[in-house]
Amino acid sequence: MKVVVSLVLAASALALSVPASAQFAKPEDAIKYRQSALFVMSQHFGRIGAMVNGRVPFDAKAAADNADIVATMAQLPWAAFGPGTDKGNTKAKPEIWAEQAKFKEHSDKLIAETGKLAVAAKTGNLDTLKTAFGSTAGSCKACHDAFRAQ
Amino acid sequence: MKVVVSLVLAASALALSVPASAQFAKPEDAIKYRQSALFVMSQHFGRIGAMVNGRVPFDAKAAADNADIVATMAQLPWAAFGPGTDKGNTKAKPEIWAEQAKFKEHSDKLIAETGKLAVAAKTGNLDTLKTAFGSTAGSCKACHDAFRAQ
Repeated sequence: MKVVVSLVLAASALALSVPASAQFAKPEDAIKYRQSALFVMSQHFGRIGAMVNGRVPFDAKAAADNADIVATMAQLPWAAFGPGTDKGNTKAKPEIWAEQAKFKEHSDKLIAETGKLAVAAKTGNLDTLKTAFGSTAGSCKACHDAFRAQ
Repeated sequence: MKVVVSLVLAASALALSVPASAQFAKPEDAIKYRQSALFVMSQHFGRIGAMVNGRVPFDAKAAADNADIVATMAQLPWAAFGPGTDKGNTKAKPEIWAEQAKFKEHSDKLIAETGKLAVAAKTGNLDTLKTAFGSTAGSCKACHDAFRAQ
């Protein structure tokens, strides 16, 4: 019995040193975490969108601040798509786990595009920002089309 | 009629250039946003806590990464406590709006403490991190005690 407990403890210590999904206490936390990170990202991305689409006057400083937050948030959700987080209050499709390499391509793409968005926003040039915003939005959409249920 | 419409449009353009609560499409979005930011923060803060409390081996790099995210997230929620966001799916107490200066003191304190936490984490010294973690946790608790319903 003692040996089993030790092995279980050793296994959890090992799991806990793995950075990704193992760091969530329960699958619901991972699901809530990735949804939270994506929601915060979407709000700041939407503020840039409002400027890009002319609904709000262009404010270079605000655009740059929002883009920095978008780029930071874009790095977070992916570690929360670990094993066992495919069921529950989630629109995540089974394809995420069945086609992990493809999913990672999409998340890497988003990280790259949001990085470029942050650089573009710092130029203070609205046209440059528009282009980067369009590429980033395309990256959001491509991943949602493939991996998020309607 | 045209004049009224123009005035309304002018008023909304004005509101939209105000950085804080005016940037949320609806009060529910503001509530969801601040809860999301706080949840993401709590998850990363909890990972530092696990190291500080010895539940997980100390990993200086992971602690520093988590602390940076905590410090970034700590800046976000407060703009989402605008007027009209006191009702709905929220534990926010009316005191937040009745005692805005006091609430701001608490949020400023958290921003300061999490900034120190990020600096402490970068030293790679577990005792330094423990001290900063304790101060930050105290700041969370003080604000929850005063402004969050159980």
